[in-house]
Order: sequence, then structure tokens, then C-alpha cells
Amino acid sequence: MEKKGLLLVGHGSSLPYNKELAETVAAMIREACPEYIVKCGFMRINQPTIPESLEAFRHEPIDLLVVVPLFLADGIHVAKDIPSRIGLPEGEKRLSFEINGRSIPLVYADPIGAEPLLADLMVRNARKVLAQN
Amino acid sequence: MEKKGLLLVGHGSSLPYNKELAETVAAMIREACPEYIVKCGFMRINQPTIPESLEAFRHEPIDLLVVVPLFLADGIHVAKDIPSRIGLPEGEKRLSFEINGRSIPLVYADPIGAEPLLADLMVRNARKVLAQN
Repeated sequence: MEKKGLLLVGHGSSLPYNKELAETVAAMIREACPEYIVKCGFMRINQPTIPESLEAFRHEPIDLLVVVPLFLADGIHVAKDIPSRIGLPEGEKRLSFEINGRSIPLVYADPIGAEPLLADLMVRNARKVLAQN
Repeated sequence: MEKKGLLLVGHGSSLPYNKELAETVAAMIREACPEYIVKCGFMRINQPTIPESLEAFRHEPIDLLVVVPLFLADGIHVAKDIPSRIGLPEGEKRLSFEINGRSIPLVYADPIGAEPLLADLMVRNARKVLAQN
């Protein structure tokens, strides 16, 4: 009963790449952090949806659940759409989540934000395409 | 005449965060890589638009221009919407860009993709919100 749940929320897309990205990142988190049970949930188009994945967490032996948006920045999706799908009032970061007759904390993490690593990744991608073209 | 142009393409949003993110990342790239002249362009809602920023690059002393999408994954925006705004046929990575009566190469970089750093950032954001809640 020591595990934590991590719901990685992807945007969803009619092309396969967003779902593949979220599933690959989820696998990387599982590998790096065995204390987390990691599931993906998608805001739109793809399955499982956010409510479907929350439901699946009710059967897991977790004592807290953290919802992490795989999004670059705050915006309508992060501020409104995802909270509405997890039942979290806008601006709040925490609620009680019922699981197997118990209440555990559900907390909502921030998106990536202005992260120096993003600048490194942009420059790397620029150099990569310049080297190939 | 040794500078390179880097057009950082943001999604755009009716909330300020996406534009702030792109501008902050652009400033980080300028700081780290003085060989690049960096401008932002937004796919929707915000200014400058992608065509407006391309136009502004025609007055810069650059000998190539790389367009880098500040997007997590390939998808409709990266595969179709951005190429259509830069005049690049879908699936192509390079075209000729007219600037001061010269032709310079314009190349189109990849989005972030399944990057181990993304998993690190997700775990960091999970731990941060758990520490605060």
C-alpha cells in the first residue's frame, strides 16, 4: 500500500504521435520510478480518456494519485478542461479521491513551463535538421 | 553575414502563458546561442504570426533560416498547419527563402518528441506538487 499513482494526461490527437509520445514517456517514468503506478489518460480523441483512467486507478493499491499534464504551458486545457474532467474546481490543486472505500489525496501538477531544458531541446532540433539539410 | 535565423513557432493561446513560454524560451536561446537571430511566430491567436515573423526575417543579415516548432509531438499542427504557413509542401523539410534579393535555405526542424528529459520533467512536477500538497 506504498505505491503512488501517476496519471499522465496527454492532449490526444487524430494522428498517432501524441498518444505514442505519452505512452513512451509513461514507460520511461515506470522504468525510472518504480514507486509510481503510471497510466495515461487523454483529454480528447484518444483512449483511455481521463475519466476512464481515473476509474482504473480505483482498483490499484495506491495511497495517493498525482495527475501530471504532458503539456508545455498553462492554458485553457490545463486550467479548465483537465480540471473539469477530474472534478477539480478551477484553481484548486487537491481533492479527495475515493478508492476501495478509502479517501486518498489526488493532486494536480503543473505543466512543463519555461524550462531551460526546452531551449536546449529547440537548439538541438535546429542543429539536427541543419546537419541533415 | 554569418548569422542564422531561428523562428520559434508557438501554438498561440487566448491565455497569455503560451506566448510567455515561447518568448522566454526564445530569450534563453539568444543567451545561449549568439549565432542565432531568434524571433517567435504563433500559429494562431497571438502576434506576430508565422508569416509576419518570416517577413521580418527578410530584413536580417542571415544566411539560413531554421523554423523550430515549440510543440511536444508531431500532429496536425506540425505536419500540416505550420508547413502551410511557411509555404512548405507537406513532408518536405527545406525550401528556398528570398531575402534581400538572395535565396537562402529555410529548413524545418522536428518537434520535441519522445525525449527522456520529458519523463524527468513530469516526475519533477509530480514531486513538486506532492511536496506542496
